[in-house]
Amino acid sequence: MAEERSEEVKLLGMWASPFSRRIELALTLKGVPYEFSEQDITNKSSLLLWLNPVHKMIPVLVHNGKPISESLVILEYIDDTWRDNPILPQDPYEKATARFWAKFVDEQIYVTAMKVVGKIGEERDDAAVEATRDLLKLLEKELVGKDFLGGKSLGFVDIVATLVAFWLMRTEEIVGVKIVPVEIFPEIHRWVKNLLEIDVVKKCIPPEDEHLNYIKARMDRLKIKPV
Amino acid sequence: MAEERSEEVKLLGMWASPFSRRIELALTLKGVPYEFSEQDITNKSSLLLWLNPVHKMIPVLVHNGKPISESLVILEYIDDTWRDNPILPQDPYEKATARFWAKFVDEQIYVTAMKVVGKIGEERDDAAVEATRDLLKLLEKELVGKDFLGGKSLGFVDIVATLVAFWLMRTEEIVGVKIVPVEIFPEIHRWVKNLLEIDVVKKCIPPEDEHLNYIKARMDRLKIKPV
Repeated sequence: MAEERSEEVKLLGMWASPFSRRIELALTLKGVPYEFSEQDITNKSSLLLWLNPVHKMIPVLVHNGKPISESLVILEYIDDTWRDNPILPQDPYEKATARFWAKFVDEQIYVTAMKVVGKIGEERDDAAVEATRDLLKLLEKELVGKDFLGGKSLGFVDIVATLVAFWLMRTEEIVGVKIVPVEIFPEIHRWVKNLLEIDVVKKCIPPEDEHLNYIKARMDRLKIKPV
Repeated sequence: MAEERSEEVKLLGMWASPFSRRIELALTLKGVPYEFSEQDITNKSSLLLWLNPVHKMIPVLVHNGKPISESLVILEYIDDTWRDNPILPQDPYEKATARFWAKFVDEQIYVTAMKVVGKIGEERDDAAVEATRDLLKLLEKELVGKDFLGGKSLGFVDIVATLVAFWLMRTEEIVGVKIVPVEIFPEIHRWVKNLLEIDVVKKCIPPEDEHLNYIKARMDRLKIKPV
């Protein structure tokens, strides 16, 4: 196939970002070789500003010179372009359901969780902890009787929800409040174990110690007080 | 085709909602007959709460008994299910670009414009007017040399951006501040004219007088003072 000849796939990302990591996971699952360009998000490169003038944010995938931004859009692009090992279901209704939950993770869980972990110089917001848990309970329910959010195997929603598994559930250790306790969320904890049994996932998540140090340093920079 | 036999397509919507209208527009463009169920968004029906327990919001499309929520997800579902008259481009890069701009309309333009038109009992927020215009300038630029955001014909981004043409640009008359003046946005005004030359669009937008009355009554209810 022409596509497989002289392809240039470059990812502008940031090693600790769950949005960047999900793109690496999708490319790795597809077996697409790519060049990773680590970006300093505190001092944005002219390349990043040029490739993503609208949002000025990572991740940006550059495929044969053409930039794509917004991680959910990039994941769909990857699935549309490299058709092997599909990450979205083929059935239109299942596909819609996957898109629904992916949006839910980014627009509901992430946004609400940021009120717990992203508060700058403020005390812990217990209402936000409860609100995050209420949202996570819907994800918990989705996991009953399933190995993965995608069903029997890892799919689109799992890739997106690695944000919960490897960002939110690591951050809570630093924040000092268990947002996702195993007593309330046994299914989510079982799912994280399932994720960690997949070599590609293990390869594509940030190394734990460095990640925890990074989150802690970032919170110190933002003057967030752990409880 | 099996799909075309005994199909049941029902839309739970609200006549004045741009999110509901965009679904009607897509179904009409596809020639899919549907039953419309007008919802009272101030007193939500048990049917709506049952069909969309996560967000409890219109629009919800029910296809052969299966509910789909979130208007961008519904539009993709419609395009995946009824393949004639595609609304998304076929090329993966063009498709990604369309998805990018659709997200931009909903997550940036709509959210920012709501600070102008949705302020409850507060004075006009001039910074929000400027911020909305800054975002609209990106849409303005996208329209240069094109009849539609989809290129030569109406597509996914146009359907989504009817929110700008027939909600934001009508609301500004009531709010009393020209957010999208023709001097600054000639391309957007030309695009609205192009939209209004399409019979299906004319058929699928809320009738102007009733719509303006509705917006005004809603602002009165919310105690928003026009300037």
